[in-house]
Amino acid sequence: MSLVNAANRFLPSDTPAAFVADAQRVAVRGERVITLSMRHAGARQVALRYELVGAADAPVVFVAGGISAHRHLAANADFPEKGWVDDLVGEGRALDPANRRLLSFDFLGADGKLDAPIDTADQADAIAVLLDLLGIEQLHGFVGYSYGALVGLQFAIRHAARLHRLVAVSGAHRAHPYAAAWRALQRRAVALGQLQCAEDHGLALARQFAMLSYRTPEEFGERFDAAPEVVNGRVRVAAEDYLDAAGAQYVSRTPVDAYLRLSESIDLHRVVPSAVAVPTVVVAVEGDRLVPLADLVSLVEGLGPRGSLRVLRSPYGHDAFLKETDRIDAILATALRTTGETA
Amino acid sequence: MSLVNAANRFLPSDTPAAFVADAQRVAVRGERVITLSMRHAGARQVALRYELVGAADAPVVFVAGGISAHRHLAANADFPEKGWVDDLVGEGRALDPANRRLLSFDFLGADGKLDAPIDTADQADAIAVLLDLLGIEQLHGFVGYSYGALVGLQFAIRHAARLHRLVAVSGAHRAHPYAAAWRALQRRAVALGQLQCAEDHGLALARQFAMLSYRTPEEFGERFDAAPEVVNGRVRVAAEDYLDAAGAQYVSRTPVDAYLRLSESIDLHRVVPSAVAVPTVVVAVEGDRLVPLADLVSLVEGLGPRGSLRVLRSPYGHDAFLKETDRIDAILATALRTTGETA
Repeated sequence: MSLVNAANRFLPSDTPAAFVADAQRVAVRGERVITLSMRHAGARQVALRYELVGAADAPVVFVAGGISAHRHLAANADFPEKGWVDDLVGEGRALDPANRRLLSFDFLGADGKLDAPIDTADQADAIAVLLDLLGIEQLHGFVGYSYGALVGLQFAIRHAARLHRLVAVSGAHRAHPYAAAWRALQRRAVALGQLQCAEDHGLALARQFAMLSYRTPEEFGERFDAAPEVVNGRVRVAAEDYLDAAGAQYVSRTPVDAYLRLSESIDLHRVVPSAVAVPTVVVAVEGDRLVPLADLVSLVEGLGPRGSLRVLRSPYGHDAFLKETDRIDAILATALRTTGETA
Repeated sequence: MSLVNAANRFLPSDTPAAFVADAQRVAVRGERVITLSMRHAGARQVALRYELVGAADAPVVFVAGGISAHRHLAANADFPEKGWVDDLVGEGRALDPANRRLLSFDFLGADGKLDAPIDTADQADAIAVLLDLLGIEQLHGFVGYSYGALVGLQFAIRHAARLHRLVAVSGAHRAHPYAAAWRALQRRAVALGQLQCAEDHGLALARQFAMLSYRTPEEFGERFDAAPEVVNGRVRVAAEDYLDAAGAQYVSRTPVDAYLRLSESIDLHRVVPSAVAVPTVVVAVEGDRLVPLADLVSLVEGLGPRGSLRVLRSPYGHDAFLKETDRIDAILATALRTTGETA
């Protein structure tokens, strides 16, 4: 069962915003169905599934992750299951629910029910509607990682008045052509599987190729240097057990159309950096094979005086946000600090 | 029709070595069936398909390329079709048939008829048998690129007395674990295609993923920066036309088992650098995503006083040997110079 589906079992399906405002450090999940005008898909009914955690009077920070992330950031008293970014949320962290209200949602398309191209602008507009529904006028911050960074850039362009500051980690103004080609081939692996009822097989292979783009040769060199084996007359290399597990885990929680449409959405993304009207900290990882440092330098140049750049070097490449949590937290602490707060 | 098959049509199927020795700058193709003791496959009948070009009294240089290379290096008067490395062979080049006899062969397994793991040691032993059959006692040089470099290292270990010098371009003592994982996934794409009688489709996808490993983000960034399109409700990125063509071309000339077994063979390859008993020039390309510079530095360190390193920086990554032909030629000229020859 997928994490998202598991989460749905606990849902108060339409929690009034008032309930949230009354409570101290409450975690609330809700689902609202809205009609959204989408760039490629036209007017569509879509579900907004959100989670809101933290002190009722604290500044709101929206957090969005990669295409396989979801609304459940971290385990909490109400929803104890593991989240996708547990190590960055909690006591003493920049994303501490004692001091921040953390809002997140399941990306449009994550339920696998949207069979049309999805634009990052659609996601940003959906978040603006969600803020309306929750009675949240302004976001103190938007922290976006990978696909979430693309959505954050769109939000900062289309809804600048509702956002004080953006932290965009490992996401640029447009997909790098090499990364786009890599994703296009992953989608072809899915299509090859779909040709004859081996959809899971194709999705697993796509995810395995994606893992190579998320990680680095440095990490593989350290973890998988064992000699290959010949098994049943076929050569099997050291990383294949790991890749098998990664593929199986992904298939168990991801609808094929969710993967396809969100993967496409990364490649459709194009914004003009100078249109971003909000102070923005761009975080780049040297060695990221999907989002090269040079592209994030271009993004920051385009942002002009509103942009600043932080560079990490990490053997985890594109996944550094999820792995280098202390260093990311330090960056978030500075970026999200409010007037009067100290480090 | 494959290039290899096309070539077979012109064959004198068993040309005596004496004929070669008689002629001046003749190009000869031959095919010999031998029994070879193979590391994984046991004793097998295999065909040695070779091409020998150049002045009869000139020093012999063996040239071996990547897994999709073959015995036809370059167009010549007898065999005018394009070869796989035309730009490095010819008048004024280090590989000039006026001054060198150039020997090459189709790798074991390239005909798709060997359904068993193939080791680089098997290829080296097959070359030694070929030299016996052709009455060639010693090679002046062995120029190996990519898979050919691995075979060259094995030859320099197993048949050191028959080789004066090795030039190993973009090939190391063992496959890098990240590159091995990349190839393992390509083989899975083929397997996925085979699952559903879409063998060509799977092989094309494998080749397309391989192309990403042969080239670099820098090149893709320059060539394929156009915005994506939505075609029939699906996102299509700028590099897909190129990748389509690369896949189709490969499928048209490559038996599936040739691809699978030679791809495996790269991952099976492991040699101890200090066992290489021949002066060796190692050529590394900075930015090669398959064979990292660091691995070739390790190789050269292991070679000790017999090893030397040349480093190129090229946007063509692993394919630099085929693209940076002037710079490669300059390296070959120095490496293959005989006593008394001047630059």
